[in-house]
Amino acid sequence: MAVALRQKRTPIVELVSIGTELVQGERGDDNSPYLAKELAGVGLVCHRFTVVADLPLTPLVRAIREASQRSDLLILSGGLGPTDDDLTREAVAKALGRKLLFSPSLLEGIRKNFRRRGVFMPSINARQAYLPKRARAIPNPLGSAPGILLEHRKKILVVLPGVPKELRAMFQQTVRPYLKKRFPRATSLPSIRLRTTGLPESHVNARLEDLIQKENQLTFGFYAHGGIVDIKLMAQSSGKEAKESLRRTEREIRRRFGPFIFGKESDTLESVVFSLLKKRKKTISVGESCTGGALSTAFTRIPGSSDVFRMGVVAYGNDTKISVVRVPEALIRRHGAVSEPVAKSLAEQARRAGKTDFGLGVTGILGPAGGSRKKPVGLVHIALATPKKTHHQKCLFAGDRETIRVRVVRAALEMTRRALLR
Amino acid sequence: MAVALRQKRTPIVELVSIGTELVQGERGDDNSPYLAKELAGVGLVCHRFTVVADLPLTPLVRAIREASQRSDLLILSGGLGPTDDDLTREAVAKALGRKLLFSPSLLEGIRKNFRRRGVFMPSINARQAYLPKRARAIPNPLGSAPGILLEHRKKILVVLPGVPKELRAMFQQTVRPYLKKRFPRATSLPSIRLRTTGLPESHVNARLEDLIQKENQLTFGFYAHGGIVDIKLMAQSSGKEAKESLRRTEREIRRRFGPFIFGKESDTLESVVFSLLKKRKKTISVGESCTGGALSTAFTRIPGSSDVFRMGVVAYGNDTKISVVRVPEALIRRHGAVSEPVAKSLAEQARRAGKTDFGLGVTGILGPAGGSRKKPVGLVHIALATPKKTHHQKCLFAGDRETIRVRVVRAALEMTRRALLR
Repeated sequence: MAVALRQKRTPIVELVSIGTELVQGERGDDNSPYLAKELAGVGLVCHRFTVVADLPLTPLVRAIREASQRSDLLILSGGLGPTDDDLTREAVAKALGRKLLFSPSLLEGIRKNFRRRGVFMPSINARQAYLPKRARAIPNPLGSAPGILLEHRKKILVVLPGVPKELRAMFQQTVRPYLKKRFPRATSLPSIRLRTTGLPESHVNARLEDLIQKENQLTFGFYAHGGIVDIKLMAQSSGKEAKESLRRTEREIRRRFGPFIFGKESDTLESVVFSLLKKRKKTISVGESCTGGALSTAFTRIPGSSDVFRMGVVAYGNDTKISVVRVPEALIRRHGAVSEPVAKSLAEQARRAGKTDFGLGVTGILGPAGGSRKKPVGLVHIALATPKKTHHQKCLFAGDRETIRVRVVRAALEMTRRALLR
Repeated sequence: MAVALRQKRTPIVELVSIGTELVQGERGDDNSPYLAKELAGVGLVCHRFTVVADLPLTPLVRAIREASQRSDLLILSGGLGPTDDDLTREAVAKALGRKLLFSPSLLEGIRKNFRRRGVFMPSINARQAYLPKRARAIPNPLGSAPGILLEHRKKILVVLPGVPKELRAMFQQTVRPYLKKRFPRATSLPSIRLRTTGLPESHVNARLEDLIQKENQLTFGFYAHGGIVDIKLMAQSSGKEAKESLRRTEREIRRRFGPFIFGKESDTLESVVFSLLKKRKKTISVGESCTGGALSTAFTRIPGSSDVFRMGVVAYGNDTKISVVRVPEALIRRHGAVSEPVAKSLAEQARRAGKTDFGLGVTGILGPAGGSRKKPVGLVHIALATPKKTHHQKCLFAGDRETIRVRVVRAALEMTRRALLR
């Protein structure tokens, strides 16, 4: 079935996510960003995402029809479940003017799937055995809903279930290999993403204004999020000149920003700090208060983190700081729990208890309550104990509880990274 | 300006998020879910979200034009920044056929904003002082980009910056009050969301099939995510009969599912466990291994959590389990770190060290490495130490590292909730 398309222009790709809970804002659409990244990996660029409700059927049909008219490849997700509000099968059939046909072999497959899990198939799951005419089922290794793959007027339409792990498995197992055969000439234009922290977006842009004017082989993009500003350089062709321009510009940007660039492409501050610790054969422990476990989580989210991360203590309340982390009581009495000496003590005691090279200590006021004129919400003390000395940093962050938490974790990781660069 | 519209039908609302980083999947669109929820609060139902790139300009203009033709209220976000890839102002002007005009007073405002933050305005920010003809600026209390509000052929168009905290502040301060005046008759149809855990989606649906057939005043929706299945009941009118049907159905569903329903509306397992602990004046500590801080984070994410949560230890590696949490070394030697006795010891020692009523202990293998035939990836032991006894639960979860982590936290919280119900 997978005959390579001979296309002269870049294929237009669109994604449609279907679910009332999505347009009601009850759940974020994680599938479209995932698919967009994966498609970029096979040289297919997404142009638009649409999110639309299951019900009423008419606008859903309309959204599918419009998207399929605009695009060469359309991937729908969601609404393939067995329940009465799952209407994607019907909507696709209607949008393309095809009949829905019952497939006995598909039903047998669904039934087998249930049996394998030791569960009897509820009768409502029989709905999942219908396919639009001349469509092919995409096997679902993790759930009951098969996907749909069909070609319609030289266009490709793929339908996947909305459950992220099922969608991902099916994309990797069936859709990705199919698309690679179908679009063999799709090549992603070379691009580079450089990640900075510690500088405001408009300054990053302003310091590159001359390069933006000069390098006409490249498109520049700037993306700020949670204290991090990404510089994205996209070549406008895959020619030699564009690639050279990309390399030259990366070198120049690195020269201008130096240590403010912490990584490239999919690097995160966590992954960079982890790699630096691992390379230098160093270990770290955490004594955190206001971040409540988020700093330890940042370290342990990375597979293999046990090589560098030994221990974290979440010391909420002074009792715990004193009895578990062994912060001297007098220190808390004299300076208050949110203070430089207590942050330093948290870092040093974490380092001692975990028997590690480094210790990170964090104490602060995340709010909404607990602030005062002298110590307002957003005040945070961060300390890093190293074998030589204990560094300290006082910060004041704006925003709600969750925003401040993210910023504190970023600042603590950045402090560790800078120390490891020395 | 805010004259109430006399509308007979429900207004059609659409959202468009603009940003190349969004369609490339480099960042999720958090703004649309936020806006959808807030709009629902003033009785406005979102019908569709669109996500589109800043560049090229033509498809962006086309997406804005299409959405504005379909809707009565259109809210755009993103692309109002000062950098060269921020083109929303231009696109809106083009889509509606209006000129962009320079506003000296707007420039003065932007300049003042910078001065207040002690920063000199970079010249590129002058771009933010342009508005489409006959549009009004929406003040931005947190950043340099003003928003745009305009009326076009009896339709309303709002443009907000993509930075979430700026968008949120501007929505609350200006857009929300404006919409309430403009759509005074918008009333949200009554609905109820009941949250269950511990049951598969198709079973929840199947057990309500008779009610779905019978209650023709209601629409049912089922949403499964991370081990939680939500039942959403939506009234089809705001009449008395529909409300009565809603109440009756809620009672019946509660009767059928009993303790499997853990909450309602915006309740989360975390918030419910927090409330139960607080109501019963109980405190809790955590000793976690594989979850790496995520369990402590679940407790501390809630404002006021210090009333019930005292301490967490993230004991990665056996050393820490022994020296910091004081799990007996012999226990680990005999049973291995991932075992019932070690989970129980983690729970009991956390309870002791934190001097709390409860202690939660978690140990398991999250993968991708570290699994064996006897102890595969996904094997997790969870224990809850109470003043009377220590409960234990052995689980096997499927999925990647992050999926398993989320499931383990859910299971540990659910175990605590069930114990608190007794």
